[in-house]
Amino acid sequence: MVTLKLRPREERRARAGHLWIYSNEIDTDATFRTIDPGSLCRVVDGRGKPIGTGYVNPRTLLAVRLLSGDVHAEIDAAWFDRRLQAALSLRERIYPEPYYRLIHGEGDGLPGVVVDRYGDVLVVQVTTAGMDRMQAQLLQSLDRLLAPRGIVLRNDSGSRALEGLPSAVEVIGEVPDTVDVIEDGVVLQADLKAGQKTGFFFDQRDNRARLARYVRGQRVLDVFSYVGAWALRAARDGAAEVSCLDSSQPALDRASAAAQRAGIALETIRDDALAGLKALRAADRSFDVVVVDPPALIKRRKDAEAGLEHYAALNRAALHLLAPDGILVSCSCSHHLDADALQRILLRESRHVGRRLQVLEQGGQGPDHPVHPAIPETRYLKAFFCRALAG
Amino acid sequence: MVTLKLRPREERRARAGHLWIYSNEIDTDATFRTIDPGSLCRVVDGRGKPIGTGYVNPRTLLAVRLLSGDVHAEIDAAWFDRRLQAALSLRERIYPEPYYRLIHGEGDGLPGVVVDRYGDVLVVQVTTAGMDRMQAQLLQSLDRLLAPRGIVLRNDSGSRALEGLPSAVEVIGEVPDTVDVIEDGVVLQADLKAGQKTGFFFDQRDNRARLARYVRGQRVLDVFSYVGAWALRAARDGAAEVSCLDSSQPALDRASAAAQRAGIALETIRDDALAGLKALRAADRSFDVVVVDPPALIKRRKDAEAGLEHYAALNRAALHLLAPDGILVSCSCSHHLDADALQRILLRESRHVGRRLQVLEQGGQGPDHPVHPAIPETRYLKAFFCRALAG
Repeated sequence: MVTLKLRPREERRARAGHLWIYSNEIDTDATFRTIDPGSLCRVVDGRGKPIGTGYVNPRTLLAVRLLSGDVHAEIDAAWFDRRLQAALSLRERIYPEPYYRLIHGEGDGLPGVVVDRYGDVLVVQVTTAGMDRMQAQLLQSLDRLLAPRGIVLRNDSGSRALEGLPSAVEVIGEVPDTVDVIEDGVVLQADLKAGQKTGFFFDQRDNRARLARYVRGQRVLDVFSYVGAWALRAARDGAAEVSCLDSSQPALDRASAAAQRAGIALETIRDDALAGLKALRAADRSFDVVVVDPPALIKRRKDAEAGLEHYAALNRAALHLLAPDGILVSCSCSHHLDADALQRILLRESRHVGRRLQVLEQGGQGPDHPVHPAIPETRYLKAFFCRALAG
Repeated sequence: MVTLKLRPREERRARAGHLWIYSNEIDTDATFRTIDPGSLCRVVDGRGKPIGTGYVNPRTLLAVRLLSGDVHAEIDAAWFDRRLQAALSLRERIYPEPYYRLIHGEGDGLPGVVVDRYGDVLVVQVTTAGMDRMQAQLLQSLDRLLAPRGIVLRNDSGSRALEGLPSAVEVIGEVPDTVDVIEDGVVLQADLKAGQKTGFFFDQRDNRARLARYVRGQRVLDVFSYVGAWALRAARDGAAEVSCLDSSQPALDRASAAAQRAGIALETIRDDALAGLKALRAADRSFDVVVVDPPALIKRRKDAEAGLEHYAALNRAALHLLAPDGILVSCSCSHHLDADALQRILLRESRHVGRRLQVLEQGGQGPDHPVHPAIPETRYLKAFFCRALAG
């Protein structure tokens, strides 16, 4: 196994617990570029003192991801079993039913892999060359631990191209076209093979639970609804009327099917979010609770300015629809938009429309998406629960 | 009523929604120092354009707190009624029982006043000269709205001296020595006349609720337990053993009394928190869940260094007591310690004791302590839920 030496004084971040090492922090020579992408490696600091074991891709700026703080660690079947078991035991402690994110990459000590669990079906997403080389080991370990009926390999994320990996979706075993997702007793529907990301967004579960106390008897609008998780949950928790706004007809169809099965009257509106919000205002509609839960509008730092404008426009349009004393739930999963920046947008837009805003709660991703305390990028989800009083 | 003019370009913060104006932002003349502390005032910007209505104390650096963005607002009985009614309607929407913070100062548009509600008893705390002058109006409005059986005026907070106000505790009507507090079905006991702050800490209620899924069958230690809210709630939620550590015997007696009434076996340990944690380690005790919920250890910016050390020492001592795979709940109500700084402490101390830390959840104050989005000081509570894996 190759040993990589860091440049002098470049070990500080790793010593503080971070798992990432950039190529410019490594004391490279001509052989570095010849390392097979994804190879396992030992890492030592500039004086030869041990840092840990990881995998390396010499073609990416983020060159090494550490798997262990032990420079002699064996990254073998037993290692995978231990990491998966540690992740599973947390989820089994928290959730009564097997629907959750089982592996959240760095947050679970498994950089480069995400696994979502839908009962006896798993969705696996591998994003780095290092994890790609160990994919067979990962799948065998998952099989030993859970013996799933089917696995969807959603190896179609955009980040794979950066690592020199192909994009493909593969199904192993048996996976139905529509899978039930049970969230605190509410049954939703997801398409694991062709839906967004890994098919469903478990990360908002706790925030959806939190909404319960605000929805009784209220009219709730779920913007960027996807398969309707916020709306259907609100209906179960006592909302008087629920509406979903999304640009995807297949997603709305799944929301409608789940609603019908639960005996819920659901309004669906197929439109671009901003256009749909403006059309609702033009039609003189109003809502007591509006949830704005967009996909990441700032994917890269250079998108920040346009993204900020987009968040502002969406939240302003949502505020225009809010009845007096209404509740706005405003979310962002953009790592590049921090919580303070989102709050500043909400403050400015609320003043723009003449409402006095109170921030009641601020939620993040659920505990099946653990944050690695040394890696800010592992915390990404923001959900502000705001009350918009008359000015 | 006096009109105060801001210096040129000093209106920006107020225009953005902030409620505070500092004396050096006001275009003062010799008459400014002669204004009666706490007088109502109109505020205009450097060009005479209206900012709003507030109250002024010419003797404090934080000179003006705005009550309304309307420069013609009448701050009368009807105004108090409207503000209180807006605050009450939020709490009645959220909580099934009348135990909560009813008024959270700036967060409820009522700078300088805190009101906690314990059924038919209120605790009122007035902290500014402006609100002190209007105290009779405030109390009359509370009486119209809620007709309380008794009110404790806890006008003994340290900040009153800065405003030139005397310190006193006064009881109006009938207030028992021990008052029940009902929190999601758990009955606790508080001393509203002599207990800490306003007698109880409603701000942690949601975080205590969040702990439920981690405590079933577990041994739970509640550090800085005060009257035992975390511990008693954990016991109700299925904890196998619960222990309270606090330096106050009266607080522990109330915890014991509440435990006895609920049929809960509660261990109480009277000691300084850090000394107590070290004694438990010396006695080879260990716990599956440790909650560290200290009072503000950084009250002023100049206390920051010593305070950081204190937070670090407490969390390190707590981590030493945690069983493998244990849960640490680490809290701070110091405004001067932000969430990132607390997370850095937790990361460093976990590495120091050889544990791999996952941050599962990050909670703040509950929705009865609304944050004013323009005033960072109104967000103060942090609660990190961490899992400490073997290294």
